[in-house]
Amino acid sequence: MPDFSYADRTRRMENPIIRQLLRLGQREGVISLAGGIPAAETFPVPEIAEASQRALDRWGSRALQYSPTEGLAPLREYIARRKGVRPEQVLVTSGSQQGLDLVGRIFLDEGDEVLVESPTYMGALQAWNVCDARYVEVPTDAEGLVPASLPDAEPKLAYVLPNFQNPTGSMLPADRRQDVVDWARHRTLLVEDDPYGHLYFESEPPASLQKLCPDRVVYLGTFSKIVAPGLRMGYVIAPDEVINMLAQAKQAADLHSQAYGQAILAELAEMGVIERQEKRTRNLYRRRAEMMLGLLKRYMPPAVEWSPPKGGMFVWLTLPAGIDTLDLFEYAVEKGVAYVPGPVFSASGGLANSLRLTFVSVPEEQMEEGVRRLAVVLREALAGLD
Amino acid sequence: MPDFSYADRTRRMENPIIRQLLRLGQREGVISLAGGIPAAETFPVPEIAEASQRALDRWGSRALQYSPTEGLAPLREYIARRKGVRPEQVLVTSGSQQGLDLVGRIFLDEGDEVLVESPTYMGALQAWNVCDARYVEVPTDAEGLVPASLPDAEPKLAYVLPNFQNPTGSMLPADRRQDVVDWARHRTLLVEDDPYGHLYFESEPPASLQKLCPDRVVYLGTFSKIVAPGLRMGYVIAPDEVINMLAQAKQAADLHSQAYGQAILAELAEMGVIERQEKRTRNLYRRRAEMMLGLLKRYMPPAVEWSPPKGGMFVWLTLPAGIDTLDLFEYAVEKGVAYVPGPVFSASGGLANSLRLTFVSVPEEQMEEGVRRLAVVLREALAGLD
Repeated sequence: MPDFSYADRTRRMENPIIRQLLRLGQREGVISLAGGIPAAETFPVPEIAEASQRALDRWGSRALQYSPTEGLAPLREYIARRKGVRPEQVLVTSGSQQGLDLVGRIFLDEGDEVLVESPTYMGALQAWNVCDARYVEVPTDAEGLVPASLPDAEPKLAYVLPNFQNPTGSMLPADRRQDVVDWARHRTLLVEDDPYGHLYFESEPPASLQKLCPDRVVYLGTFSKIVAPGLRMGYVIAPDEVINMLAQAKQAADLHSQAYGQAILAELAEMGVIERQEKRTRNLYRRRAEMMLGLLKRYMPPAVEWSPPKGGMFVWLTLPAGIDTLDLFEYAVEKGVAYVPGPVFSASGGLANSLRLTFVSVPEEQMEEGVRRLAVVLREALAGLD
Repeated sequence: MPDFSYADRTRRMENPIIRQLLRLGQREGVISLAGGIPAAETFPVPEIAEASQRALDRWGSRALQYSPTEGLAPLREYIARRKGVRPEQVLVTSGSQQGLDLVGRIFLDEGDEVLVESPTYMGALQAWNVCDARYVEVPTDAEGLVPASLPDAEPKLAYVLPNFQNPTGSMLPADRRQDVVDWARHRTLLVEDDPYGHLYFESEPPASLQKLCPDRVVYLGTFSKIVAPGLRMGYVIAPDEVINMLAQAKQAADLHSQAYGQAILAELAEMGVIERQEKRTRNLYRRRAEMMLGLLKRYMPPAVEWSPPKGGMFVWLTLPAGIDTLDLFEYAVEKGVAYVPGPVFSASGGLANSLRLTFVSVPEEQMEEGVRRLAVVLREALAGLD
């Protein structure tokens, strides 16, 4: 077998820990609270079948031909209408992950600084590690990013998840949003990642950063969490000039996103399925979040802390210093429960005493047993601290 | 309006000439012989409708959930079976363009050399310009790449289109394939791009480079030219280790290719549609190639030369030195015909006295008028040479 001579950037692609974890957590008998995937029972399967037929009836072979890099017109128009922007400000992407990747491609030179929350979404780090980005972390509390801790620096990008953050579930209040935008205005470009905005449990989130400052925000949205991730359809909203540059990058990356999937989404939009899905998914997730919070209260030892999420898919547990959730993971899997260790969400490898749980993809009848098992493991770990 | 500070690599993304050309060629009344797209009337629209329903019946919400980066098992297995490899050697990509992009990502450091044919496929240059590749050109003749001209060098990659090359339509004979593989064995990795292999007019092409030397070849295939490009489904065949590295790069780029589209293709395969499509498309393109060759013979001035393609979608015209097909383009469009100027396919901006025509996407009833108009334009240009 010959050995291959890879590019330098491949050394920054590997994440053996996560790969190993995912494999371990899939063992038979393990209740996984580790998932980052939506509840499959929310996917509108018959509606997608109908929309597929409608798309082919209406578009014929045009739904199957090469199509514009920026996206199919009716889908761009739908997104623009929903988000209160012009269609020229919208680029359809192959999921939000591609949005992150394209943003890195057009903005990040080797060594460029990116401000990220601590904790933050690991997929963004994965996308930007390829560009050899350096991360500057800003702390978060129960209400998200702490504006008073924003540094007096000019990072190339600042990455923020204001709505039901992954992993913490926190929602950035309106006044903090304004603070973030004011801080960013003359020093950086904000990348606002919003996969969960429609999944609120109480009231709709405040105005997006993009609304507050359309000139300095690249907004990432997705249909993965409200329709289905297997369609791989996301979008970017940004100033026209940035959209043009992203489209050039996208042309080199994959020419355009799937035309058929875009036509299907445009039909689903016209059929009213997308709004219906938002409501349906939100209601289901609210119920499951309540279940999970009740179980945590019941089973967790007092030293374990969390803030009730106001939307989204996750709850973030903080344990006393000294607990290492990465070390503990294999033992937890032996005991039949999986979670995501905190360091996975840290640009600097910190956050060892925290972990992420999902409440949406675990079968409801297994949730109690999963939380109970986790509580046992954590109790043991806490006892070991003394 | 603020100005944005882009990464260095964006300067290598722009290709204003091609963008401008594409726009010009779409003017009303212009007969376009410039397209690089398959004939939409070959797309199996009702079969895709049926396969969509079957995929949802069989897979349910699993066709719509996050799925493995490497691809859905039944599709990988189908590709492996057709190509005589193991499923572990297959990565499903979002079209062949993504295959090119991922190959660049894992292999190319800034300034790395890539050997390319002259002329070559512009999409590969677009993908690898982002990595700041340097190109070494090797000349081609009517039978493709000329092995005697291969340099005594060790480029990082060598990019070859053995079957019905884009843009020349040439097919590399078996002995030349062996020469290329022998040359490559101890000095480089071959990237074999094969979108047109199933579109032969006479007999099936000789064994692929991948078959001759599986350890040193990354093979790129696609369903775009035999099913439909709007599905954005391609694949890479490579040694397992390279597939693993490509999958890591793909995870950061877009997580995975559309699950629904992969399930649809797996159904089409089972329904026997893919093989039927290959035959049907090949027969149609053979007829159109014959039409085009007859018309060229009839209308073109004697100074214009071409080699009859043995498959694929294109014929390549060579004109006397002194003709500049880039300069001539605007005038041709004024006269109602569009082609692709030769320099678009040159890594060094040469090949001014050549151009590419397609015979597959121009309506048959317009083909004669298109060729006639082009002949008039070329005659005038030739007269201007004296």
